[in-house]
Amino acid sequence: MMKLDRRQILALAALAGATGAIGAPPAAAHDKTGKMPPIPEDAPKIAMLVFPRMVALDLINPMTMFKIARTNIMLVGKDKQPVNTDVGLPIAATHSFADIPDDIDVLFVPGGTMGTVDAMRDPETLEFVRRTGERAKWVTSVCTGSLLLGAAGLLRGYDATSHWTVTHLLPQLGANHVDDRVVIDRNRMTGGGATAGLDFGLSLVAQLADEETAKRVQLILEYAPAPPFDSGTPQGAGPELVEAFQAATPWMQEQTRLAVEEAARRLPTS
Amino acid sequence: MMKLDRRQILALAALAGATGAIGAPPAAAHDKTGKMPPIPEDAPKIAMLVFPRMVALDLINPMTMFKIARTNIMLVGKDKQPVNTDVGLPIAATHSFADIPDDIDVLFVPGGTMGTVDAMRDPETLEFVRRTGERAKWVTSVCTGSLLLGAAGLLRGYDATSHWTVTHLLPQLGANHVDDRVVIDRNRMTGGGATAGLDFGLSLVAQLADEETAKRVQLILEYAPAPPFDSGTPQGAGPELVEAFQAATPWMQEQTRLAVEEAARRLPTS
Repeated sequence: MMKLDRRQILALAALAGATGAIGAPPAAAHDKTGKMPPIPEDAPKIAMLVFPRMVALDLINPMTMFKIARTNIMLVGKDKQPVNTDVGLPIAATHSFADIPDDIDVLFVPGGTMGTVDAMRDPETLEFVRRTGERAKWVTSVCTGSLLLGAAGLLRGYDATSHWTVTHLLPQLGANHVDDRVVIDRNRMTGGGATAGLDFGLSLVAQLADEETAKRVQLILEYAPAPPFDSGTPQGAGPELVEAFQAATPWMQEQTRLAVEEAARRLPTS
Repeated sequence: MMKLDRRQILALAALAGATGAIGAPPAAAHDKTGKMPPIPEDAPKIAMLVFPRMVALDLINPMTMFKIARTNIMLVGKDKQPVNTDVGLPIAATHSFADIPDDIDVLFVPGGTMGTVDAMRDPETLEFVRRTGERAKWVTSVCTGSLLLGAAGLLRGYDATSHWTVTHLLPQLGANHVDDRVVIDRNRMTGGGATAGLDFGLSLVAQLADEETAKRVQLILEYAPAPPFDSGTPQGAGPELVEAFQAATPWMQEQTRLAVEEAARRLPTS
């Protein structure tokens, strides 16, 4: 077995203590009430967008990973009023659009189809995403979040993915759809639908820190998935489930298509 | 391709509309603001425990699945004041211990190690879990939540699992540890650590509704996991990461061990 020195043990302790999943911090790194030492000043700064009707798990799965990895997380919204989410749990931003510092390392946009459609039609949100994405080291999304990145002009000429129901719309926003769970093209990292946030989160932690840190996060969250069925993709689910789903959601599909067309018309021709 | 009749399409539409992940409901089942029809009176009633220092994703991943499956979800806490979670997002119960109806179908307990330890030492919480578990059709948990079920005497003589860091403590609470991602023994269903909530959620939806519904939920959430590393289990992570983790968390381990011993002493001898 590898022998760890005190510095390594303290680093691991801090990492371990960062999540309730593995419980209270050891005395070495924290006091006995579980209080964490402050996040280091030079930890990566991650701006995670919060908007009405977003999908809570799109945010919370990667957020948990970023927190265990001891990054500096900002939940950013138009204001700090709680927004409602798909599951009815309100989430409040910690920072408003005007509040976040200039040196953001990561812009992250979760999904939430009709929430995404509303956000794509909101000039203030689009402008925040555009200007933050232009200066961030990483421009990232999960699920339909990539449509909002695309609407802000941030995916033109990039490989990207999205929720399977909307990937065919990516080219209208200038992106090239690649059918992978997590797509990395230069400093763009986009994940597939909803639960892809876990695979995305580990991939981004590996880039922001290193593979060792990502592997520790994976162990702490016991991410060794074993789905009881194989219906997580249109291919696995089969044509009947897919066709039934699409037949059942004409209004959503139409609104998403329209919002993408409107956004595409606003993009400057390159 | 299968042809769907109107009833089937409406049922799917309702299902599809239940999550922001796939967006707004079709006009057939919802109005154009995305308002859902009420959950049917006879939908399964799921009581999900909320307690301080719980792990948010332990709750939110299965909750999202239960919501898409159109069940009646109650977040149950000592009171309705928001509790803090591992990621710093407050979650408020919708029901207090005294509020929930007698005919609960599912009791669900999320994890959160030191939060779990506190809950195991709280007579009011233990009593709520015990009496609700005794009358629920399903008694369930994710992550360290099974320690709380065990402390309430609900796992004696049952196969169960938990987060990998605490599975060795299950026998003290009368449970038999089985090393699976989701363990079902009669009406007990326990999941492994944290992210096992997704595999658990699909398994429970299949039991409460049917496999077809679970597969639809899986497709909507695009749950086709592809972890970039293989460190989600102690075996996959290897002895160095595991030993380092354990060396870094002596206080947490000691507190959990003590809380389990205290709970074991309180259980009636059978």
